[in-house]
Amino acid sequence: MNEFELIARLTKTLPTNETVLAGAGDDCAVLDFGVPEKLILFKTDAVVEGIHFTRETPPKKIGRKALARCLSDIAAMAGTPTAALVTLALPEKFEVEFVGKIYDGLNAVAEQFGVAIVGGETTTNPERILISIALLGTVPRGKQVLRSGAKVGDAIFVTGELGGSLAGKHLDFEPRLKEARWLAEHFHLHALMDLSDGLAGDLQHILNASKVGAVILKSALPVAHAAKLRAKENSSAKPAALAALTDGEDFELLFTVASKDAVKLLDTWKKKFPQLKLSCIGKIVAGDGILLRDKNGSHKLNAHGYVHFS
Amino acid sequence: MNEFELIARLTKTLPTNETVLAGAGDDCAVLDFGVPEKLILFKTDAVVEGIHFTRETPPKKIGRKALARCLSDIAAMAGTPTAALVTLALPEKFEVEFVGKIYDGLNAVAEQFGVAIVGGETTTNPERILISIALLGTVPRGKQVLRSGAKVGDAIFVTGELGGSLAGKHLDFEPRLKEARWLAEHFHLHALMDLSDGLAGDLQHILNASKVGAVILKSALPVAHAAKLRAKENSSAKPAALAALTDGEDFELLFTVASKDAVKLLDTWKKKFPQLKLSCIGKIVAGDGILLRDKNGSHKLNAHGYVHFS
Repeated sequence: MNEFELIARLTKTLPTNETVLAGAGDDCAVLDFGVPEKLILFKTDAVVEGIHFTRETPPKKIGRKALARCLSDIAAMAGTPTAALVTLALPEKFEVEFVGKIYDGLNAVAEQFGVAIVGGETTTNPERILISIALLGTVPRGKQVLRSGAKVGDAIFVTGELGGSLAGKHLDFEPRLKEARWLAEHFHLHALMDLSDGLAGDLQHILNASKVGAVILKSALPVAHAAKLRAKENSSAKPAALAALTDGEDFELLFTVASKDAVKLLDTWKKKFPQLKLSCIGKIVAGDGILLRDKNGSHKLNAHGYVHFS
Repeated sequence: MNEFELIARLTKTLPTNETVLAGAGDDCAVLDFGVPEKLILFKTDAVVEGIHFTRETPPKKIGRKALARCLSDIAAMAGTPTAALVTLALPEKFEVEFVGKIYDGLNAVAEQFGVAIVGGETTTNPERILISIALLGTVPRGKQVLRSGAKVGDAIFVTGELGGSLAGKHLDFEPRLKEARWLAEHFHLHALMDLSDGLAGDLQHILNASKVGAVILKSALPVAHAAKLRAKENSSAKPAALAALTDGEDFELLFTVASKDAVKLLDTWKKKFPQLKLSCIGKIVAGDGILLRDKNGSHKLNAHGYVHFS
C-alpha cells in the first residue's frame, strides 16, 4: 500500500461539519468561517531529515523550504497566506545555533510573503529533525480553484521548468503566489494545483478529481536545465523528458483553462511575468489517464510521480 | 538549554501582521480574520512514539490522545474547536490496520466534539510514529481568556484531580471544553490555561505572563487517586502531593478569578458539574514565583513541571 492508497482509505469517511467546503483531497482545505467575502484555507506540510533535506543542508534553507512548500499549496488555491504555526521535532542533543538558523530561514520567507509566525511547539524526535508547518490563508469567496473543475477541451499549462529539482531548486524555489492570484483574477481557471510529486502523478490527481483524461505533447514539456544536464552527464540517469514528467519538488503551478482563453493567456502572461516561462503542454480529453504524444505516436503514461512508501 | 529556554529564544522576534491578537506564548494563537463577533484560534500539537505513547498503546487511544491534547488547548482559551488537519509520520513498514485504528480514535473524538477532519498528510519518519494535529477553533470576540490577566488577590482554581496521569488518564482524559465555555460565559476569568506539563511549571507561565506570584496551599491540592496509589505502593515514587504539583498530562483547567467571585463560582459549579471536582488551591500575590504553604510554613517552590530536553 503506497501513500496515496493509504490516504484514500483513511479519508473515505472523515467527520465533517457545516464549515467545510473542501476537505481532504485538494491542495488546501477550504473552510467557511463566516468571513465576509473570504474563505479560509488550511494546510499542513512536513519535511523530514534524510528525506526532504540532509544534515548537510544549510539550516536556513531547511527552514525556508519547510514553509515555502506550504506557501506553494496556498498558491495552488489562488490564495493569500496569513499565519503559520511551526512544529519542530528535534533529537535530544540539538545545536541551538542550527535550530536558530532554521528559524532564520522560516522567518525570512514568512516576511517575504507577509505571513505571521504565531507559535507552534518543540518536541522530541530522537533520530532526526522533522518540521511540520500549519498554515492559514484566505481566498476571495468564489475565487478558490479546486482540482475538480477541468473540462474536456481545456488547455493544460505549467509555469517554469520541470525536473531535476533535487540539484538545488527544491531548496530555493519561489512559491507562485502572485502568479496564481493574477491568473485567478484575470482568467477563469478550471483546475489548479502545485507540482510537488511530479507532473505525471500530480496531473493524475486533477484528472481523477475532474473525471477526465489528458494528452500531453512530449515536445512541449519545459524541461529544466538541471534535468538535461543530469541526463547528459550520467547515462544511467532518467532521460530528461522523463525527469520533467516524474521528478518531484518542482513547486510550479499546473492548471487548465478553456482552450479559447489559451492564446490571450500566453500573450498577457509574457507581458506580466516576462521572467517566468509559461507552457501549454497539452489538453484535457474525455476518458481517464494520460496519453503522451511524441513523433512516434501516443502511449499511455503509467510512470508515477514520486510516491512515499512505494 | 531546555524546551522553554529554546522556545523563548526562537520566539523573541517572529514575523507578525495585522491579523495577530495573540501569537506564540499562549495556549492558542488568537487571530482576527474579520469574522463578525468571533476570533479564530489556531493550535498545533504533536505526539511521538516512545514519549507520549508506546507501540503497546492501543492505537485508537493514540489517535484519541493526539487530537484530545489539541482540544484541551482550545478549552484553555474558552473556545470551540472546528476543523483539524492530521500529519501522520510513519515508519516505512507500517500496519495498515494499526494506522486505521489510530484514525478510528481520532475520528471518534472529533465527532464527539463536532470537529471536522479536513485532510492532512502522511510522510515518512523511519524510526517511530509521530502524529501532529493542527486545529482551528473560534471564540466569541472579547471572550478569549489569555494567560496574562491574573491579578493580585485572585483566587486560583483547578478542575479535576492532579498527578499520576501516566497510569491511564493521559489516554482517556476529557478535554474540558464545555466547562471552560461555561466558566467564561458566567464568570470573569482573569487567566486560564490547561495543565499539560504539571501544575508547578504551568502556573509559572501564568505568573510570568501576568507579572505576579502565587501562594498554593498544599492541603488544598486535589491529588489524584493514581498518584496516591503510586506513592503508597512504591517508596521511591514521588510523594503524592509532589506528583500533583509536577506530573504532566493532567489536561485539567487552571484559572484565576477575583476572590469576590470564588464562593459563588464553587456553589454554581457544584450544581452545573456535580461529577467534576473544582478546587480553590491558593491565591495570586505580588511578586513572582510560587510559595507552597503547609503546616510547617511556606517555602519557595522550585520544582519544575515536566520539561522536554531538560
